[in-house]
Amino acid sequence: MTMQTTTTPQAPVAPAHGRLRPLGQDAVRITGGFWGDRQAVNAAGTLQHIGSRLESEGWLPNFDLAVAGTLPAGRRGREFSDSEVYKYLEALAWEIGRSDDAALEERFRAVVARVAAAQEPDGYLNTMFGRPGQGARWSDLEWGHELYCLGHLFQAAVARARTRPDADDGLLEIARRAADLVCREFGADGRDGICGHAEIEVGLAELARATGDDRYLEQARLFIERHGRGTLRDIEWGRKYFQDDLPVRDAEVLRGHAVRANYLSAGATDVAVDTGDTELLDALRRQWDRTVARRTYVTGGQGSHHQDEAFGEDWELPADRAYSETCASVGSIMFSWRLLLAGGDPRHADLIERTLYNVVATSPAPDGRAFFYANTLHQRVPGVLADPDTTSPRASSSLRAPWFEVSCCPPNVARTLASLDAYVATADAEGVQLHQYAPAIVRTTLDDGRRVAFDVETDYPVSGLIRVISRADAATDAPWTLTLRVPAWAEGARVQVVTADGAVAEDREATTGSVEVRRAFRAGDVVELDLPMAPRLNAPDERIDAVRGCLVVERGPEVFALESVDLGATGVDDVAAVALAPAAVPVERDGRVWIEVVPLTADGGGWPYTAPGGALEAAASVQVPLVPYHEWAERGPSTMRVWIPVAD
Amino acid sequence: MTMQTTTTPQAPVAPAHGRLRPLGQDAVRITGGFWGDRQAVNAAGTLQHIGSRLESEGWLPNFDLAVAGTLPAGRRGREFSDSEVYKYLEALAWEIGRSDDAALEERFRAVVARVAAAQEPDGYLNTMFGRPGQGARWSDLEWGHELYCLGHLFQAAVARARTRPDADDGLLEIARRAADLVCREFGADGRDGICGHAEIEVGLAELARATGDDRYLEQARLFIERHGRGTLRDIEWGRKYFQDDLPVRDAEVLRGHAVRANYLSAGATDVAVDTGDTELLDALRRQWDRTVARRTYVTGGQGSHHQDEAFGEDWELPADRAYSETCASVGSIMFSWRLLLAGGDPRHADLIERTLYNVVATSPAPDGRAFFYANTLHQRVPGVLADPDTTSPRASSSLRAPWFEVSCCPPNVARTLASLDAYVATADAEGVQLHQYAPAIVRTTLDDGRRVAFDVETDYPVSGLIRVISRADAATDAPWTLTLRVPAWAEGARVQVVTADGAVAEDREATTGSVEVRRAFRAGDVVELDLPMAPRLNAPDERIDAVRGCLVVERGPEVFALESVDLGATGVDDVAAVALAPAAVPVERDGRVWIEVVPLTADGGGWPYTAPGGALEAAASVQVPLVPYHEWAERGPSTMRVWIPVAD
Repeated sequence: MTMQTTTTPQAPVAPAHGRLRPLGQDAVRITGGFWGDRQAVNAAGTLQHIGSRLESEGWLPNFDLAVAGTLPAGRRGREFSDSEVYKYLEALAWEIGRSDDAALEERFRAVVARVAAAQEPDGYLNTMFGRPGQGARWSDLEWGHELYCLGHLFQAAVARARTRPDADDGLLEIARRAADLVCREFGADGRDGICGHAEIEVGLAELARATGDDRYLEQARLFIERHGRGTLRDIEWGRKYFQDDLPVRDAEVLRGHAVRANYLSAGATDVAVDTGDTELLDALRRQWDRTVARRTYVTGGQGSHHQDEAFGEDWELPADRAYSETCASVGSIMFSWRLLLAGGDPRHADLIERTLYNVVATSPAPDGRAFFYANTLHQRVPGVLADPDTTSPRASSSLRAPWFEVSCCPPNVARTLASLDAYVATADAEGVQLHQYAPAIVRTTLDDGRRVAFDVETDYPVSGLIRVISRADAATDAPWTLTLRVPAWAEGARVQVVTADGAVAEDREATTGSVEVRRAFRAGDVVELDLPMAPRLNAPDERIDAVRGCLVVERGPEVFALESVDLGATGVDDVAAVALAPAAVPVERDGRVWIEVVPLTADGGGWPYTAPGGALEAAASVQVPLVPYHEWAERGPSTMRVWIPVAD
Repeated sequence: MTMQTTTTPQAPVAPAHGRLRPLGQDAVRITGGFWGDRQAVNAAGTLQHIGSRLESEGWLPNFDLAVAGTLPAGRRGREFSDSEVYKYLEALAWEIGRSDDAALEERFRAVVARVAAAQEPDGYLNTMFGRPGQGARWSDLEWGHELYCLGHLFQAAVARARTRPDADDGLLEIARRAADLVCREFGADGRDGICGHAEIEVGLAELARATGDDRYLEQARLFIERHGRGTLRDIEWGRKYFQDDLPVRDAEVLRGHAVRANYLSAGATDVAVDTGDTELLDALRRQWDRTVARRTYVTGGQGSHHQDEAFGEDWELPADRAYSETCASVGSIMFSWRLLLAGGDPRHADLIERTLYNVVATSPAPDGRAFFYANTLHQRVPGVLADPDTTSPRASSSLRAPWFEVSCCPPNVARTLASLDAYVATADAEGVQLHQYAPAIVRTTLDDGRRVAFDVETDYPVSGLIRVISRADAATDAPWTLTLRVPAWAEGARVQVVTADGAVAEDREATTGSVEVRRAFRAGDVVELDLPMAPRLNAPDERIDAVRGCLVVERGPEVFALESVDLGATGVDDVAAVALAPAAVPVERDGRVWIEVVPLTADGGGWPYTAPGGALEAAASVQVPLVPYHEWAERGPSTMRVWIPVAD
């Protein structure tokens, strides 16, 4: 690994201001463990799989057809299929930044060349609009996704510019030409419109940061401010679907389409931070608070409705058909990460951790070639394994599927995993903050020029022990502060400092939130954070009606599920036929988490609403193992539930 | 009122065989009370309202445009808008049958004339297909609704033929010409297709009964048998949406789109009965059993999903966003009524009663000019009153709306109310069966020629006392049997016979199901059924996860709801902030049902999944009144819940 210190971090988000400075791939490398394994699968399996499907589905060939002049006749894919190509490019860019893989570099350049060839002389780039037989440019802002696609193009170009600033592939220039067109068309004197799917905002803001061209930030600001003024047509689900019902700064909570809402919030945070708009930033923090308190699943997933892929009302969080779209979680991480950088509140990193372990890690299959689009918390009927060559309905919450007609989630997972090193740590004038725990190498320079170098050793979340080992080249006489996040669930955590000579220099409680260790670190000094990892039971707020009377088992950052394939000992074969034994306590044994359940005996049916007291009959209790939610449905068709009712 | 005895009853359903013979408008008239009031509003308000909107929305003028040759340019409305005109005609026919209203008769004839003019020479009739610029006939069986529309035409024609057999309006001939075309096109040697929305089956079966032409029955049979053979294209929600996933006789439960499923089941029952297909009939009974046990709301409503307006899996019955489409309940009544006629099982009449009181009566506003399309069981946010001139999104479960883009429900309610007299009673060789309780006059002739005449006096469901008074002209020395349904909830009911001279001839318990009184009735003899009407609390089957830990209050056939506008005494203004006091018992006072609740104090928010025991704080209990569910949202915007959690 060769790591350089650049002025701009090799990271997806590089705000002009903020409490914390992100550390990119140039400063942090995940070297293995839970996330390192998934990054390896992403590189070896998922990127190849996505590239192959983009070809076979025709979504990448659409760019070739544009050049050949055979659009729209030959066009395949939905109106937003260009964006999957751009997310794939972004994922490739981050992976090349990590691995310097020559084959991926060749692939990246080949795809960029095909995209470049399709760009119009004035900068316009879209395979769905603008040609004879197609809709006119910008003629369908509600559903056309033109600006949305460009937002993803900009993010891809920024990823490339930050990881290979001297590359001559031309992607940044493609993005700039398109962004210049957007500024001309949609500037203060241009069309008073917004895109029906937010994304251009976050793309423009980051492009401004990557290029230093503030026109793009101003255009992002205009798009943010135009939301909530009803410039989009009303639809059956209301303008809140597009977040065009209320100005961003006047809203109280995220609402409408959950991916759109999170992408918009991420872009609005970028604009608020870079323009110094503290009123807007405060509004976004309040919206995050209420959304997390009232509209978020225990997995971190967001979005309750299948119909409009949208947030429900406060407390409307059905486990049944929980939509919890994978992309909404990617968007939630984008939003939380920006708020974390802006203010340093560890609650934002807590939600990122929860979402990473329980949605992002849940979506891909172990081989990285099949995905969940929706992430239900309750599977009532065993799913059906999709044929590897099939294109599946997006929200079939049965088994992971290789590809979808709307296939936004696979490349979104891919770009998130490929850039995950950049979500591990940040720096400020006083030191370095560790937000996520993975085996890692961290090498950076503080604002005053002090060099900091340490390694992280951990098998988290197998155990809760995180060891931070100072390395020789970071030794200095000047103290700096290592800040370690202590998740909200980690009551009773402890931190210890053991010096290179084996002396215990510090040993104290680490209260939830974060713990600071300030020292003149020397090579071999070790900071050990010990997070309590006993499995724990949690109950929902009583206002979450859908899971009243149920408990969830968690251990560390992982949410657990009861899956029918583990019910052998009970003699029943469906999670609907067991309940937690009263006062059951989860235990660990043989590397698994076990809970005591009682098989239920049900009568044969009849009118199901009868006088109270007719509880299902419970038999003798038996121990059954649970599975981490992110591992469910990996052993064939099954039924599953995260929230387990407590037997009367 | 002039009542005649005709060979075919003035009723929507007249099977060739079956356990019970329906009594139509010619034999039974509702004379007031709960349903009589609603029939009066239907006649005076709803029919005028529907007629006016069919004109202003352009759905009736589409037929004029067809004649003028200006289709498709001027066409308005969705692909199924013709069917609303036919349902309106059916409602008019039943109402004319009841009231002999000259203005309605004139209106009926004028509408029929406009429809007639649009019929093609070969019998084809549809304003959406078949002309230059329109899709070809039968080119979109999945979504085109051509056969569906004709099914409603046939039901309208049958209603007219049975209520005005000698009328010269020509509607029956229009229907026959269209049906003949369907038989030519889709017969055994014709197109191997079905309609994406079942309805033609029930229409053809009844047209066969009304005309004596068995070709129509055979065509209905063909359509039934073709379901489940995948002749329709697959869609995102699967072929079960159309019930094209499994042959009707192989299915175990209703599934897919809830209106389609019920209409298909009703048509399949007609075919099974008239062709003597007991295997098919048994399959339908089993499907009804499981659907009622596992896929039906406490209101009788069916359909859990907004997205595809479909049944959920077994036990998937969220109160939140319960879809419970009004039309699905009309379909459920159609299906249950046919099974009741076939076998006489009072459970089918029980479900009809529950569905009538808690869905059909819930949909229309008191003035009959606004409707619920979906009937949620939990309203979390106060609704918004629709402008009287607005066309609303169909499933906005806020306040009743005057019209919808998809406006199937208003005319479906109208035709059900106008024909409701025909769902009150049946006859067999031994006597008469009363299934629904309303003030009514019953005059009929048994199979052996004995005349039966009685009046029903009751204020049910205000009280549970139903008095059946034998009338002079029915006096006979030969005994006959009066069978009275005793609803499943009416444990402890009693039946008494008081002769004309005041003597108590019988006084005994009436066990749930039904009770028989066999006598040589004389004028003035009174049978009194006394149903216990104390409010009662019921709990859901434990497998209905969404309402675990909650209870519902019912009284007689009515389900009750807690509405925010009644919470004044608690000091809180939202149903989310109260719970039932432990061991609370509902009581009646001042004509209302009251329950003891405790106001809940919630903290300010934060992560909502925490260690058990953090229940919301409960204050002192207070009595609040409930409202019959069918009356909710009649006092302005409110929040509401049917299932009320029990405080810890």
